[in-house]
Amino acid sequence: MVDAPRPSAPPNPGAGEIFQILRDGTARTKAELAALTGLARSTVSVRVDALLAAGLLRPAGEAASTGGRPPARVAFNPRAGLVLAVDLGATHATIALADLAGAFLDSHTRTVDIGDGPETLLDAILRDGATLLDSPAAAGLPLLGIGIGVPGPVEHSSGRPTNPPIMPGWDRFDVPGFVQRTFDVPVLVDNDVNILALGEHATAWPDVDDLVFVKVSTGIGAGIIAGGQLQRGAQGSAGDMGHVQVPGGVGSTRDADDERDLEALASGSALAAALRAQGHDARGPADVIDLVRSGDAAAIAATRQAGRDVGEVLATVVNLLNPSIIVLGGSIARAGEHLLAGVREVVYRRSIPLATQHLAIVQSQAGDRAAVLGAAIMVARDVLSPASIDRRLAAPSA
Amino acid sequence: MVDAPRPSAPPNPGAGEIFQILRDGTARTKAELAALTGLARSTVSVRVDALLAAGLLRPAGEAASTGGRPPARVAFNPRAGLVLAVDLGATHATIALADLAGAFLDSHTRTVDIGDGPETLLDAILRDGATLLDSPAAAGLPLLGIGIGVPGPVEHSSGRPTNPPIMPGWDRFDVPGFVQRTFDVPVLVDNDVNILALGEHATAWPDVDDLVFVKVSTGIGAGIIAGGQLQRGAQGSAGDMGHVQVPGGVGSTRDADDERDLEALASGSALAAALRAQGHDARGPADVIDLVRSGDAAAIAATRQAGRDVGEVLATVVNLLNPSIIVLGGSIARAGEHLLAGVREVVYRRSIPLATQHLAIVQSQAGDRAAVLGAAIMVARDVLSPASIDRRLAAPSA
Repeated sequence: MVDAPRPSAPPNPGAGEIFQILRDGTARTKAELAALTGLARSTVSVRVDALLAAGLLRPAGEAASTGGRPPARVAFNPRAGLVLAVDLGATHATIALADLAGAFLDSHTRTVDIGDGPETLLDAILRDGATLLDSPAAAGLPLLGIGIGVPGPVEHSSGRPTNPPIMPGWDRFDVPGFVQRTFDVPVLVDNDVNILALGEHATAWPDVDDLVFVKVSTGIGAGIIAGGQLQRGAQGSAGDMGHVQVPGGVGSTRDADDERDLEALASGSALAAALRAQGHDARGPADVIDLVRSGDAAAIAATRQAGRDVGEVLATVVNLLNPSIIVLGGSIARAGEHLLAGVREVVYRRSIPLATQHLAIVQSQAGDRAAVLGAAIMVARDVLSPASIDRRLAAPSA
Repeated sequence: MVDAPRPSAPPNPGAGEIFQILRDGTARTKAELAALTGLARSTVSVRVDALLAAGLLRPAGEAASTGGRPPARVAFNPRAGLVLAVDLGATHATIALADLAGAFLDSHTRTVDIGDGPETLLDAILRDGATLLDSPAAAGLPLLGIGIGVPGPVEHSSGRPTNPPIMPGWDRFDVPGFVQRTFDVPVLVDNDVNILALGEHATAWPDVDDLVFVKVSTGIGAGIIAGGQLQRGAQGSAGDMGHVQVPGGVGSTRDADDERDLEALASGSALAAALRAQGHDARGPADVIDLVRSGDAAAIAATRQAGRDVGEVLATVVNLLNPSIIVLGGSIARAGEHLLAGVREVVYRRSIPLATQHLAIVQSQAGDRAAVLGAAIMVARDVLSPASIDRRLAAPSA
């Protein structure tokens, strides 16, 4: 196979591009692939054979014969390899084993303390990963990549956390480099809200091009999908809603000199502090949720006000980005409809009518699994991209 | 040529895709195009011949011979046709004639009153367009499309303005349908700030993926380029900064009940009103600019405060989208550095450090021509897209 130079404008329809056609799961013959791509039959044959040899395609029976030997079909083989998907939180870490279609085979969750630092923590998670890879579910398939979500800002291009407030010892830590000492595969790292947005989008809103996912739990952050793509911005810090300054807040006089970060007003931590100041026993977000669920009037009122405060910032987001869907997730969003009600109250009143007339504001539907699913999607997309496939086939080991 | 079905995943490398390779201006042989695309030589030949017959490619000499007849080269022919680009403002309209590479051949600007309504106004502009097409500069080349920027929100998919505040009679008016009665070609309509963003991006920052263009003149709006794409949002209203609510404003007590739209605080119209209230003779934005340029202390202070108010909203934009570049344009931005200074003062203080450390906030460099250039780029991209090229070649007239 000639290694033709790649033009910058359109993709060279190499093996990687042929493979993209088959990712929809439909089995096709070489003749069908030649018709779909316009490639010469001989070119298709060479590339399909390479993909079969690499295990990325599998034989999928025969098409109806039109006389003579019936043509063989090939199809995407999601079991060509595995990915590990990690959802790392402040107090827990889940690592899941998934196939290349994102189907989960097995997972393990452990209690952690993010303050233990990256080496201790990643070592423990990677041991769990090794156990998963040794389990019967893995069936001895090769690991092709690892996706990791962490609870703080990340420079996505390098996989290094950047000044993460609740992750002492992680600032500028080379997560991919450390992980690759154990597993020599591509490692992608992103903040937890971005992977939640990917997971929620894939699960509940796959056809929506413009979606904003907001997580309200210990902190507050957003994952922005615009024009069908997750937007990370120039340094990977896009979606930082928590540090947007808003006037006033619960119990403040709300004059302009009293502006605070949204997170200091409306996060689970802020709600717990506000409730403690009123004499409640609320050490953290979990206690706020318990109080809300038990019907405590002060906790419900504070949560609704937090929704209004989040809504103030989202009203601006709606004018700027005109999304179709805003999804509220995170533990505080899950504690009933109070946060949602507060957000709706403000956004529908304050954003421009053109942007709100078809806007839905909803609770997260993907639930707890959205984060690991998003991490699996992030890394599977990378591993199965045309460029990655072409690199894999060109490598001596392929 | 077999009209193969198009897969949804990768592009069918038809004539339209071959054409994209040549848009970089480099002349290539059929053999080089076959190597670049992986297409069979016979397929490339049929498609290149169709593009030559349609005039989209032109013969471009011969490559060095390796023995025998030297192979012929072909290249993109920007003079395969023309586009008309319209920049419609409240008081003026410019229509420019451009080739398919966006080079201007001729243009005409007329004084208008947007209040005259769409039919009167578009008729006058289209007469100017017909004059341009009849001029020697047009050389009798065919018109392939028209791009129009208007001073108000537009549903881009239909080309209809949507509740445009300063465009009486234009609400839901079918601009493409009306224009096509005179010129039966594709007509794309967008708001003026989006086409300014496209023009500024193409002229000054072609390699930047994340750019926010802010226009401060009679009103205030933004054009958002994220992930390399202009983001219009679900209904085409993305970038509406003018109706973001901000606390206080010039001379207000700035308590929370005194929130106003950014446009009501910091636009050219708002500045004129504030200066009139102080006894100045400032009927509109033009007078504000004259006062600023003459060194009037009150006008300068008001413009700087307007910059701070715009900066309050941009601080949120920076946290949300993490752009590399913010470009300030519009007449108030051009009246010296005062608006820019106010914006910088607030954004660098209030946005998160990760998002501001490499952020540049600059004046528009593309100047007056950015709008028509952006309109020409918008329509040329559409006319030269793979799908449009393939449609053109399949049409009976091609």
